[in-house]
Amino acid sequence: MFHKLTNLSFTTEIVNNCPLHLSLCSNKNYIFQELKKFNLMNTNKRNRVYIATSLDGYIADKNGGIEWLENVPNPENDDMGYEAFMTETDAIIMGRNTFETVCSFDIPWPYKIPVFVLSNTLNSIPNPYQEHVQLLRGKVKEALKQLHGKGINSLYIDGGKLIQSFLKEDLIDELIITTIPILLGEGIPLFSNLDKPLQFECLSSKKFTNSLSQNHYIRLR
Amino acid sequence: MFHKLTNLSFTTEIVNNCPLHLSLCSNKNYIFQELKKFNLMNTNKRNRVYIATSLDGYIADKNGGIEWLENVPNPENDDMGYEAFMTETDAIIMGRNTFETVCSFDIPWPYKIPVFVLSNTLNSIPNPYQEHVQLLRGKVKEALKQLHGKGINSLYIDGGKLIQSFLKEDLIDELIITTIPILLGEGIPLFSNLDKPLQFECLSSKKFTNSLSQNHYIRLR
Repeated sequence: MFHKLTNLSFTTEIVNNCPLHLSLCSNKNYIFQELKKFNLMNTNKRNRVYIATSLDGYIADKNGGIEWLENVPNPENDDMGYEAFMTETDAIIMGRNTFETVCSFDIPWPYKIPVFVLSNTLNSIPNPYQEHVQLLRGKVKEALKQLHGKGINSLYIDGGKLIQSFLKEDLIDELIITTIPILLGEGIPLFSNLDKPLQFECLSSKKFTNSLSQNHYIRLR
Repeated sequence: MFHKLTNLSFTTEIVNNCPLHLSLCSNKNYIFQELKKFNLMNTNKRNRVYIATSLDGYIADKNGGIEWLENVPNPENDDMGYEAFMTETDAIIMGRNTFETVCSFDIPWPYKIPVFVLSNTLNSIPNPYQEHVQLLRGKVKEALKQLHGKGINSLYIDGGKLIQSFLKEDLIDELIITTIPILLGEGIPLFSNLDKPLQFECLSSKKFTNSLSQNHYIRLR
């Protein structure tokens, strides 16, 4: 849920300063070439993850806490590629837990693109989120089919359980993982069991703000 | 157990080509400066880990297999900083499992520096390893005290269980983790439970051989 923390400050900054055309990261052309190599730009359908984990692979501590994410010094407000990532994203799909966590932040809705909540237990999207969020039912593949039918192809998959569901179906094309250099010792893991190993390639490995590493992986098919 | 695979080819190469003075990595001075900043060079006592894991944090698959490590393309035989790391290391401490795995490789002894096996269950070091390997008894702190008493200060801590024991006692100063871009789904994890979170700093983040990322972390105390 890294983005939800970093986003908030960037969202505020965007509202305040109105930089409508955000500059993309300097290696965008290289990344586009790499993506073309992997045929990701041709089909235009891709499911991507942009998330932070602890060094031992947790997205939250054992109580669901994410205070350890807030303690990362970021004096230059480096967005760590987040806005560049979002400009290439048509919509976000998140699970119910992640949606309810975002709602609990008690701030203006932080996303500028459509958000879909994939849940078979949530009755309806509560007010005041109905103008920003749509509820999706069914299984992961069915939800994807619905979105692709609407021309919504480049998706940001968010939330631990939903990411695990996508990985179990081998439906994740890219993983952008920012590692917070802390060993929590226990918590809620990003990854879980799989029916078969999944091979990726490392597209880039970067260090940010003197304390974070960010690795960008692409699924090899 | 990444090093045991990569080492073997490098060890063979060293024997064949006799490059006695291996060139160190280009950023050695920078790293030395950073280490000085953290006072690691002053005390000269440090416990370091150099290991590879899968993207989901496993050092071996569920059956202990490490074939997934062997499948990493490395056309230029990049040593990924291993020899530079070893030139700064006085000795290796490994657990019984790791020692027995190295023995099972059925190759000439691959290490040029002293190796200590910390085990309270192994009766003795078998032939023909006695000239290279010494047995240590007791707990982690006692073993460290013995080695420091002999002036052996810069240590390479190897093997999943031993690394976990060191981390539980907050005795690891540096972690150099090479990530193989594969999700195994299950296996033997590098990390385990801790009594308290441990904060590190990311010293460097690099990409090797178009498929591996290597992150170097230093414990913040």
